[in-house]
Amino acid sequence: MVRDSRMTTHVALVSRAFGCRKIFMTYVDDSILNTVNDVTNRWGGKDQFEIQYIEDWRGLITSWKKTGGIIVHLTMYGLDVDKIINHLNIEKRVLVVVGASKVPRGVYSMADYNLAIGHQPHSEISALAIFLDRLFKGDELEKYFKDAKIVITPSKEGKRVRLSD
Amino acid sequence: MVRDSRMTTHVALVSRAFGCRKIFMTYVDDSILNTVNDVTNRWGGKDQFEIQYIEDWRGLITSWKKTGGIIVHLTMYGLDVDKIINHLNIEKRVLVVVGASKVPRGVYSMADYNLAIGHQPHSEISALAIFLDRLFKGDELEKYFKDAKIVITPSKEGKRVRLSD
Repeated sequence: MVRDSRMTTHVALVSRAFGCRKIFMTYVDDSILNTVNDVTNRWGGKDQFEIQYIEDWRGLITSWKKTGGIIVHLTMYGLDVDKIINHLNIEKRVLVVVGASKVPRGVYSMADYNLAIGHQPHSEISALAIFLDRLFKGDELEKYFKDAKIVITPSKEGKRVRLSD
Repeated sequence: MVRDSRMTTHVALVSRAFGCRKIFMTYVDDSILNTVNDVTNRWGGKDQFEIQYIEDWRGLITSWKKTGGIIVHLTMYGLDVDKIINHLNIEKRVLVVVGASKVPRGVYSMADYNLAIGHQPHSEISALAIFLDRLFKGDELEKYFKDAKIVITPSKEGKRVRLSD
């Protein structure tokens, strides 16, 4: 299967925009890094969001669990997100695993929760966004980064921005 | 700018999975149609979801408004979705316009509402999903199509499906 940089870039942008601190990727190329760095430079988040390339996703999951974090795998075969979300212990660090059909079967058993964002096929991008929106109860839509060079002034029509130095 | 079939396909899949009746597209290719038809054949929705190719998006917006529908354009420059969503008249037919940076400026003035799903760059796929989730108050995640050949049985681990004839 061909790696799709644009899809992966959008997964990274959703992670940043919806309140994740970090994204671990088993595949990164220059176009992904350039886009995300460009967004972070202009819209902020240099100290609040980072991409980390990993080779060994099993090792990451294992050590994440060992150090007290929980693993949520988003899959349309999982339990309904709305039935489970309030039972998640959000005091713990949450590692969200997405990857559509490419996710190896082992992830299902390693995950603490296999959660479905509906049981219809759609997109890892929309699944991640809805999950984070549920997790942060909508607060992520007010996200603002201190080091932003451009800040939007919400507008009824057109594009209004404030530039800072 | 290169047309991106995979992104467009995911926009179509979100539309179907999150309760839209129809998607109008100014660009359709075989890979998009094949994927969406394949999903609709297996997971259902033949009578409940369709793709319509259009050339003249201005004409569509104009006639949509003339016949009493409302236009919602999703843009990170718009007003906060959570401040406006409860004021939308959902008795009316809603046409949602998405398209990231490719959206012509005219759309901003033709839209009844320019709404932001946060004011950070992310993805038209996630923006559409969050908007529809707000519009349908989460009910769309229980969506089920009568003519589905495969129906998922939500599962704590692994993949369980029921096949119908």
